[in-house]
Amino acid sequence: MSLKPSPLAPAAFPEFPEIKGVRFAVGNSGMRYKGRDDVMLAEFSDRTTVAGVFTKNSMPGAPVDWDREILSTGTARGLVVNAGIANVFTGTAGRKTVEETATTTAGLLNAKPEQIYIASTGVIGEPVPTEKITELLPRLAEDLSSAAGEAAAKAIMTTDTFAKGAVARATIGGKKVWLAGFAKGSGMIAPDMATMLAFLFTDAVIPADVLQELLSEANEKSFNCVTVDSDTSTSDTVILFATGAAENDSSQQSVNPLLDDFKRALLEIMTDLAQQVARDGEGASKFITVKVSGAASDASAKTIALAIANSPLVKTAIAGEDANWGRVVMAVGKSGEKADRDKMNLRMGGILIAENGVRAPSYREADVMPHMQGKEILIEVDVAVGKGSAFAWTCDLTHGYIEINADYRS
Amino acid sequence: MSLKPSPLAPAAFPEFPEIKGVRFAVGNSGMRYKGRDDVMLAEFSDRTTVAGVFTKNSMPGAPVDWDREILSTGTARGLVVNAGIANVFTGTAGRKTVEETATTTAGLLNAKPEQIYIASTGVIGEPVPTEKITELLPRLAEDLSSAAGEAAAKAIMTTDTFAKGAVARATIGGKKVWLAGFAKGSGMIAPDMATMLAFLFTDAVIPADVLQELLSEANEKSFNCVTVDSDTSTSDTVILFATGAAENDSSQQSVNPLLDDFKRALLEIMTDLAQQVARDGEGASKFITVKVSGAASDASAKTIALAIANSPLVKTAIAGEDANWGRVVMAVGKSGEKADRDKMNLRMGGILIAENGVRAPSYREADVMPHMQGKEILIEVDVAVGKGSAFAWTCDLTHGYIEINADYRS
Repeated sequence: MSLKPSPLAPAAFPEFPEIKGVRFAVGNSGMRYKGRDDVMLAEFSDRTTVAGVFTKNSMPGAPVDWDREILSTGTARGLVVNAGIANVFTGTAGRKTVEETATTTAGLLNAKPEQIYIASTGVIGEPVPTEKITELLPRLAEDLSSAAGEAAAKAIMTTDTFAKGAVARATIGGKKVWLAGFAKGSGMIAPDMATMLAFLFTDAVIPADVLQELLSEANEKSFNCVTVDSDTSTSDTVILFATGAAENDSSQQSVNPLLDDFKRALLEIMTDLAQQVARDGEGASKFITVKVSGAASDASAKTIALAIANSPLVKTAIAGEDANWGRVVMAVGKSGEKADRDKMNLRMGGILIAENGVRAPSYREADVMPHMQGKEILIEVDVAVGKGSAFAWTCDLTHGYIEINADYRS
Repeated sequence: MSLKPSPLAPAAFPEFPEIKGVRFAVGNSGMRYKGRDDVMLAEFSDRTTVAGVFTKNSMPGAPVDWDREILSTGTARGLVVNAGIANVFTGTAGRKTVEETATTTAGLLNAKPEQIYIASTGVIGEPVPTEKITELLPRLAEDLSSAAGEAAAKAIMTTDTFAKGAVARATIGGKKVWLAGFAKGSGMIAPDMATMLAFLFTDAVIPADVLQELLSEANEKSFNCVTVDSDTSTSDTVILFATGAAENDSSQQSVNPLLDDFKRALLEIMTDLAQQVARDGEGASKFITVKVSGAASDASAKTIALAIANSPLVKTAIAGEDANWGRVVMAVGKSGEKADRDKMNLRMGGILIAENGVRAPSYREADVMPHMQGKEILIEVDVAVGKGSAFAWTCDLTHGYIEINADYRS
């Protein structure tokens, strides 16, 4: 099956910086994909700190179990990612795959196994042929290059139709630092924890516990706002590596104002990547932003926003370029959250469609048609009970989703 | 848009009995559908008792508000249902439509307005042209016939591809009674409360409060086990009318063993109708039964069963005739309920596929292919933590769903 690029893809993969202390290499394992790279190795310099967030699915894959265990070391020397088989529901054999991969990589990078992070994505329930990874690793260790970021981003793709990268600059105490990352996503994307695989890299010096606080906070406002089909993957992983090569003021023992610009840049690249994931939702033809205001709390607003963003009836209506606001309000109602049916307001593309729970007298369907025919759809709902607000990103539900998911294993 | 009949439809609409004390009439309002009946009137004899269950969506339509209010009277003399416009998010105008319809009908049937039940189904957010209903009612009142049950079942359809009816006989204290009903469903079907519109009729004598207890209990095991797309309608309604014409022993002031056979028959017709709703899920090509056992409780098992039944990834895999058991276990994990990843067992079509959380050594994909290629799919999961069990019915997710829902208003 060949996939056409999503019509919502960005113009190009960003120019990926060479970040001091990070090197990449890629190769083909022959495990599932032919004629493309499907394994990436990253090597990090000695003083690299690390933070991570993982799927809330209670049936995680073996790599997620492993990463969660080793995260307490706070350090990282390597990362191995394979695409094609996810190493989920593989029992003790799956655990062995992870341990052998970590041990082999540690040997090659002169590190400890518990400094090697692992991620796998692809089909679940099938065993991983471990040696197809481990036999490839020595060559990858020789090929490591700080210029291979884009190649690494491509090697982790599965049903993605484009590689997803993001880059930003920030200043910490007068010192410039890089932030860059890449992600893979598309189907089986839903909070919490949102998403897919995303790997973020910076040359800043930031202690692991501070890094974790920054990552978790940014994650709530980025990857956890994306949903494609409400299905939460067993492998969702976001890891942030900080090599420390920028040698900025390293006295940041807590999240403080000196880190504000780094925080902004981190949220910027994570937002960018999260939106790219929704833009590459399987079969997506329109990118949808849902904004909810007037809710009882921010958490309540987020539940409502995700109920709208996950509703198949809303998503098919958008695919049909139909400003079917009744389905949006239905989704508010099924969320179980507080909302005032008779005071609600609803806008699409900025145009007031429903006011106080009924169709606005001023509303003419023709007014909103140009917006519905576009590729960027905005739905705004004020549920009129409080001051809570939140947003969610998703895509429409089209024939393409069915095609990709009915045929994925064949 | 014309809809092909679902490949999962029963062979025929059942022979609908003439139930003493119930008469039907149908007509075309011209509101939305051309060339078919879209309004039904039912008249009930004087001593009719009534019970109802309604959507848990917090944004119900005006008819649901009305029915909930009048249900406390415990009596019914009439029922008016229209298909095409749902009278939801119609504010005070929607309330006026309901009140005028009830008043007009009450006048024609020599009843009180609060004995007239109303249901509407179709597009939400659009006003109902009330006079198209009220002007039709005098003719319907003249046409009332106890033989028009099937015509009534057809008049309430929207995107349904076949009319749904069910019939059973029961004995109460040596007296034979009829139970019969019809339903409309397809998209926007999810617990709780499940479904769609369903109207049930019996000639038994049963007090309203006993009837309510029987209906609520059977509803949990029938309509609340159906899901098509996880979207819960704003109009879901199940009403049971008991005319008392059978003159069975009327001393049943509580649910007691004398009513056991009636209970059985009620669950039988409600199960039948609920399954027909899933069989007519928009675009359905396969009927799916999900059975969960070994859960912490029955409630937990139901949450897991519905998580599986609602998963777009599971439903598209079934559409693709792919025994993708990993997606089923993913859905167990996203349910948030207790399950033992490393002890779970999973069967499809009775064939053991996963055992203790990994692919069963005995499993060959070819063994399960004949089952996956059939129209009736059975998924069984034992989550290995307790004794709770439950089931859910759904259908696969196909291109047909997208076609119907992207174009529904056009």
